[in-house]
Amino acid sequence: MAQINDNYLKLQAGYLFPEIGRRVNAFCEANPDANVIRLGIGDVTEPLPSAIVTAMHAAVDDLAAHDTFHGYGPEQGYAFLREPIAGEYQARRVNVDADEIFISDGSKCDTGNILDIFGPDNTVAVTDPVYPVYVDTNVMAGRTGAADEAGRYAGLVYLPVTAENNFVPALPEGKVDLIYLCYPNNPTGTVATREALQQWVDYAKANDSILLFDSAYEAYITEPDIPHSIYEIDGAREVAIEFRSFSKNAGFTGVRCAYTVVPKDLVGRTASGETQSIHALWNRRQSTKFNGASYVVQRGAAAACSEEGQEQIRSLVDFYLTNASLLRDGLDSVGITTYGGVNAPYVWLKTPGGASSWDYFDELLGKAHLVGTPGSGFGASGEGYFRLSAFNSRANIDEAVARLKKTL
Amino acid sequence: MAQINDNYLKLQAGYLFPEIGRRVNAFCEANPDANVIRLGIGDVTEPLPSAIVTAMHAAVDDLAAHDTFHGYGPEQGYAFLREPIAGEYQARRVNVDADEIFISDGSKCDTGNILDIFGPDNTVAVTDPVYPVYVDTNVMAGRTGAADEAGRYAGLVYLPVTAENNFVPALPEGKVDLIYLCYPNNPTGTVATREALQQWVDYAKANDSILLFDSAYEAYITEPDIPHSIYEIDGAREVAIEFRSFSKNAGFTGVRCAYTVVPKDLVGRTASGETQSIHALWNRRQSTKFNGASYVVQRGAAAACSEEGQEQIRSLVDFYLTNASLLRDGLDSVGITTYGGVNAPYVWLKTPGGASSWDYFDELLGKAHLVGTPGSGFGASGEGYFRLSAFNSRANIDEAVARLKKTL
Repeated sequence: MAQINDNYLKLQAGYLFPEIGRRVNAFCEANPDANVIRLGIGDVTEPLPSAIVTAMHAAVDDLAAHDTFHGYGPEQGYAFLREPIAGEYQARRVNVDADEIFISDGSKCDTGNILDIFGPDNTVAVTDPVYPVYVDTNVMAGRTGAADEAGRYAGLVYLPVTAENNFVPALPEGKVDLIYLCYPNNPTGTVATREALQQWVDYAKANDSILLFDSAYEAYITEPDIPHSIYEIDGAREVAIEFRSFSKNAGFTGVRCAYTVVPKDLVGRTASGETQSIHALWNRRQSTKFNGASYVVQRGAAAACSEEGQEQIRSLVDFYLTNASLLRDGLDSVGITTYGGVNAPYVWLKTPGGASSWDYFDELLGKAHLVGTPGSGFGASGEGYFRLSAFNSRANIDEAVARLKKTL
Repeated sequence: MAQINDNYLKLQAGYLFPEIGRRVNAFCEANPDANVIRLGIGDVTEPLPSAIVTAMHAAVDDLAAHDTFHGYGPEQGYAFLREPIAGEYQARRVNVDADEIFISDGSKCDTGNILDIFGPDNTVAVTDPVYPVYVDTNVMAGRTGAADEAGRYAGLVYLPVTAENNFVPALPEGKVDLIYLCYPNNPTGTVATREALQQWVDYAKANDSILLFDSAYEAYITEPDIPHSIYEIDGAREVAIEFRSFSKNAGFTGVRCAYTVVPKDLVGRTASGETQSIHALWNRRQSTKFNGASYVVQRGAAAACSEEGQEQIRSLVDFYLTNASLLRDGLDSVGITTYGGVNAPYVWLKTPGGASSWDYFDELLGKAHLVGTPGSGFGASGEGYFRLSAFNSRANIDEAVARLKKTL
């Protein structure tokens, strides 16, 4: 009799964004004339930069002719993309080789799939609030018990990040094996200093832990002293895997391209206590369960790494950062306390009057026809907070700010 | 201390195709002037049909303009692709709804990822020889013990398919929970009759098993009575998941698009013995660990489903089938016994003189500068067999046949 993976039954109802979708749809059905502005999900809105468009057209043409046709590519990605990415690291004096870079179709896949190569008994730490995928994929993989009433799963180590600790998680008290860190942070929009990251790398070295470092938003860093990569930190090559994406800088949420850096210095332990190369395991995982990202997509991503592409991406990122600044200023002007939004496309706000996150969601939707993301949807410690995304047109951001000023 | 997934250590050295790559590279380095023709890996060689090229260009242009830009798509795929696929099924009088179709970036991913939703204690049956990904992904997921000297993993049920049983696997003697079937078959190029498939569906119903039916090559079926889908068989909606791909019909091995059909009638059992919708589990898996296939790619796939696209695909498939026929005839003319190649792009041959599969590989490479795939690489029962792929240019196929005739 075919048995299901019972761990799925522990998952709490609804991934956050589907729940938002359900509430928004219900509102729109009841209010068909409302002009709802969506500042919820972190999805880009601006067209692809022209350098990328040109490269993707050329790639489609490659596939249309016999001599330039490409069938299966390397599961790890084409050298024409891995090499310029390595070059970008090296330009920041970060030591990452092209063959340590694994191209994929997205960081959501990568951060979930990476768990395949780790054993079931690792203890796992996440910040709270957190990007829900880190948690749900561990639940599915059986590394947790059931959820409590606040939605916290037994066995997971939650590291609160709130205004009280200035959004810097304290090191775990005991030993934790796998630690997810995301900087610039989703959902809070805050960043980690070099000193904070050095503490984590030192912790990981002392405890033989592995850091799963998600830097999908690194292009949004504006302050000069904030590290863009975990590998800017001494010793990180021995303890960290880094996830990066073209989604939020080059506008690839619908195009689909990301990459995972697995340094050859990184090892895990077998059950018998021997060390084992994590790079070799991930290479085997990807070779067996993945067939490479689309050729056309990889050509587009390579164009994003070109000089012309980098300039165009820079202006795209600046556009969204200006949006974030407008949102922050608007919220400030009506007395709402905000965080983030300086080195990230997300503004994290304290709900006024101590409202619950979902009550504030309903209020903002009902009164201002604005959709944001309830902080509690990202974890128990996100309760009383709310995320607004700067990914939108300027007209919508201006209108959203006007509504915030009028309504609140 | 971060523990690895020790199941990876059970994997036998080298996935088949990397091993072939190593031997071919060594040969080419030693013989730089040899014109090696590769009939090994099943990778398409012909350009994309023009209807697909046109659609992909238009999709790139969509992403270049504000009003037609697409960010995140549905994790399950766009309706513009799911609906025409459902229409193709319905045109064959097969009852599959659009929301039972999950679009992905490839069947290799899908056949591996599907294991996520099943429990660790399911018993698994595969044919022998078999597409290695089915086996390796189960090893990685911990559903096997160690491999024996013949490369067979303890705990897996192997169903031999050889000339002796006319390549029709016998039903397992005991109960098996998950059964992989691939028709038209990779690697043998043989097909299953309606009666044979009905036996499997009946077995699955009687034993609450689930069939994992891979029909990536269905477009190659030329004989009128051979089922194209498992859902042409009575009762299959209650027991089968079907995997399909645009790789081998539309030439998408580098473009990356496939789909998995999970009927809503299909259930598994929880540990406590209750039934659970497999469709709901797969939907949750894909929503959490996948972010949809590339918009540009899905537009290309949708064009493959159009009337114009279907005509162009038909001529592409016919081209490769003619190649298969030429290979078969060439081998027959020198007294080599062949199977398959009529409803599939693969010709499966008995090695002459009882040579081992790898010895024949080395002989064919050394004498005729032809690369094929050793049958034993697909499983112990593939020993003494050899696969030639029809995916190549006509000039290469003609030259390969000439060399076969001259050399053997």
